[in-house]
Amino acid sequence: MLRTWLSLLALVIAAALLLACARGEPVDLLVTGGTVVTMDADRRVIEDGAVAVRGERIVAVGSASELNRRYRARHRLQADGRLVLPGLINAHTHAAMSLYRGVADDLDLEEWLQDYIFPLEAKLTTPESVYWGTKLAALEMIRGGITTFVDMYYFEDKVAEASAEAGLRVVAGETILDFPSPDFKTPAEALRWTEDFINRWQGHPLVIPAVAPHSAYTCSRETLQAAAELARRTGAPLLIHLAESKLTVDQGRKKYGQSPVAYLAELGLFDVPTLAAHCIWLDEQDQILLAEKGVGCVHNPTSNMKLASGVAPVIALRAAGVPVGLGTDGAASNNDLNLFEEMDLAAKLQKLSSGDPKALPAADALALATVEGARALGLEQEIGSLEVGKRADLIVVQRNAPHAIPFYDVYAQIVYTLKASDVVASVINGQVVLQDGRVLTLDEAALRQRVAEYARAVRAVLEEQP
Amino acid sequence: MLRTWLSLLALVIAAALLLACARGEPVDLLVTGGTVVTMDADRRVIEDGAVAVRGERIVAVGSASELNRRYRARHRLQADGRLVLPGLINAHTHAAMSLYRGVADDLDLEEWLQDYIFPLEAKLTTPESVYWGTKLAALEMIRGGITTFVDMYYFEDKVAEASAEAGLRVVAGETILDFPSPDFKTPAEALRWTEDFINRWQGHPLVIPAVAPHSAYTCSRETLQAAAELARRTGAPLLIHLAESKLTVDQGRKKYGQSPVAYLAELGLFDVPTLAAHCIWLDEQDQILLAEKGVGCVHNPTSNMKLASGVAPVIALRAAGVPVGLGTDGAASNNDLNLFEEMDLAAKLQKLSSGDPKALPAADALALATVEGARALGLEQEIGSLEVGKRADLIVVQRNAPHAIPFYDVYAQIVYTLKASDVVASVINGQVVLQDGRVLTLDEAALRQRVAEYARAVRAVLEEQP
Repeated sequence: MLRTWLSLLALVIAAALLLACARGEPVDLLVTGGTVVTMDADRRVIEDGAVAVRGERIVAVGSASELNRRYRARHRLQADGRLVLPGLINAHTHAAMSLYRGVADDLDLEEWLQDYIFPLEAKLTTPESVYWGTKLAALEMIRGGITTFVDMYYFEDKVAEASAEAGLRVVAGETILDFPSPDFKTPAEALRWTEDFINRWQGHPLVIPAVAPHSAYTCSRETLQAAAELARRTGAPLLIHLAESKLTVDQGRKKYGQSPVAYLAELGLFDVPTLAAHCIWLDEQDQILLAEKGVGCVHNPTSNMKLASGVAPVIALRAAGVPVGLGTDGAASNNDLNLFEEMDLAAKLQKLSSGDPKALPAADALALATVEGARALGLEQEIGSLEVGKRADLIVVQRNAPHAIPFYDVYAQIVYTLKASDVVASVINGQVVLQDGRVLTLDEAALRQRVAEYARAVRAVLEEQP
Repeated sequence: MLRTWLSLLALVIAAALLLACARGEPVDLLVTGGTVVTMDADRRVIEDGAVAVRGERIVAVGSASELNRRYRARHRLQADGRLVLPGLINAHTHAAMSLYRGVADDLDLEEWLQDYIFPLEAKLTTPESVYWGTKLAALEMIRGGITTFVDMYYFEDKVAEASAEAGLRVVAGETILDFPSPDFKTPAEALRWTEDFINRWQGHPLVIPAVAPHSAYTCSRETLQAAAELARRTGAPLLIHLAESKLTVDQGRKKYGQSPVAYLAELGLFDVPTLAAHCIWLDEQDQILLAEKGVGCVHNPTSNMKLASGVAPVIALRAAGVPVGLGTDGAASNNDLNLFEEMDLAAKLQKLSSGDPKALPAADALALATVEGARALGLEQEIGSLEVGKRADLIVVQRNAPHAIPFYDVYAQIVYTLKASDVVASVINGQVVLQDGRVLTLDEAALRQRVAEYARAVRAVLEEQP
């Protein structure tokens, strides 16, 4: 009797196992049916492909038929007739400045800063405004296919908090300056706070705290060295503005007797993983030094054109071995946070400045916004491509809008015709944050109300201005 | 008794008149409630404004409350919380090339033309493909706020027909070349056909036929002179490519012993109203000559950057008194037909190339796409601004997308943040052609089916290529 029962039990277990096997291994999310543009080392493009996600990570990338067989998904995202791409990386911005979008345009840099941005920030940049400004930026960025952004601003606890709530990945660094800013009166305070900030957030699934001395020309030698030492001690990445304006580079050369790049290298800044924004006014030696030191650069084509800063030597930097990412800069100097436009413009700006229409082809422009951007950030093991083991950061993009048909070449179409408005879904760290064009992680109505309140306050300050 | 009746009758008539007066004069369309950006000589911006349309023309522009009192409208278009702008003018394109969007990118001009565009056009550019290609372009352009476009291509009867059906205004010129093209074997045939074409379409409410010799370097002296003579005789405007590539300008200087501009002026081309596309490689004398002759220029920033052609001296041309319009060029070298992007890029490209962030401010960039574009086309009495007596060509643009809030400055917001996808309604020649984002004049499903068929044919030709 017992043997009969045991045999029966064995049979039931075997049947259950078989059934489970037939239904496949469980995964949390299966994105199926789209053209999967992996941006892996082989630049695989999989027609009718699929991506399987378990928890925070990608567990498989392949054909839809195979992955449908292999996996049983808790949730599915149908991407039929659409593109599935790695989420875009906005490698340099000041997210909360979205509240100052378009307050002052077509001005000299000094006028823009001294007459508009600094007075506004002094009066209105508070932890709360940074929180809501970052949420507005997050809404725009998620809608436009950005899944990671790198931020340098004030009250970065609020940037981290707003981003984490929005489900958006962020590398966040409190701007360290030698003069008083909305957050701290001295660089020593900012450095001390940054250490606490790093301790609070390090290890968070979405937030990577960073050390962010503003630039060579706004920080003293001591501040820069202390920042590098803090980054070394904590293992946090270092963020800095570098060689954005010809004027500050020329002044720097006089002051330090060497280029700002050589000066920063001497101070040890590049001995820790560093991401440098703008990188326009570099000579050949600077480029070689950046490559040797493994510094990542961020190209900001829209901001650089709008402020007449110049053209970053993207082709030469990449040829020297420097990984280059793409950034929007802040919405006060852009005036939006749209990485599709930055990709398009990056490609065209290199063609124009080199006189060569073959320069920076579309696939390379997409790389800047994805896998190479990840490399510039030192996050190439985690994000930037659709590969097994990486974080599940991906977007689904429609390809049938009137501006996007016919469709011949996937990279040309992404870079030269698709728009941020074509992004229909987004997954960050395994979580679906955008579906059918709606951001699921943000209360848009409440956010709009707060933005309207801040806009009234901004207008009031502008009206007081002489 | 009769007097009583007459008195009663008078009373009834007076009452009817009073009632009619109270209900207002009849108009066909009243667009109300938006911020009306007129682009008139005073650059009036009317908050809570309105535009009244009777037949094909604007009969009033003013405050909503006033126009609501004055007029009784057959149809109304509510624009509350939105912008009402003059329709945008795409002053240079090859609309039907939308079928070749993205077939070949990141190539040298010669390779692009000889290996891709010319073989494709030889095999596939037929009256039917031009008809459907133009309809696709019309769909994209109408959706993106373009209400007039200037076209140079082949089988322009089909361009005119497709545009008229779409309700889109077009200046259409059959490309005249000295070598065989998909339509004609000789320039004489093309010239003869153009004269018939002009006779067929002149006076049409939406179609303005033009004479379109391709360029100084692809037409002989005789062809150019005959084209100018035809334009003079018929009163049709003349369209031409001018100084797009440094190579052809340098070659031209050698061949004619003078600049292409001076050469064309000598041949009498600029003695008729002429619209010249690109206008990049011009010296100061060329600029003065163009101004003296009243030639309009078209700036094509995206195409010029993508093909590494150079930067048109827009600021110098305008300073010399040359009206400058904006164009997308064809979708095979752009790769879309998006005048919001061209405005944005025009402003930024002049800032970058001049090193002056104040160059070509936002309001001027909008002027290029509207009232100054109209002047370049010689149509400033008809289109380009919202003024009484002009054709009713206007668009309604939403201003509350996440990328477009907050909203401080109307011109900066239009040029630096608003997108083609923000256009929600369009009126051309008094007819509502776009409402709630849907083009009312095109059968989109049928169009998409035909585009898919042509795309298959294009792919087949590309696969045959060596």
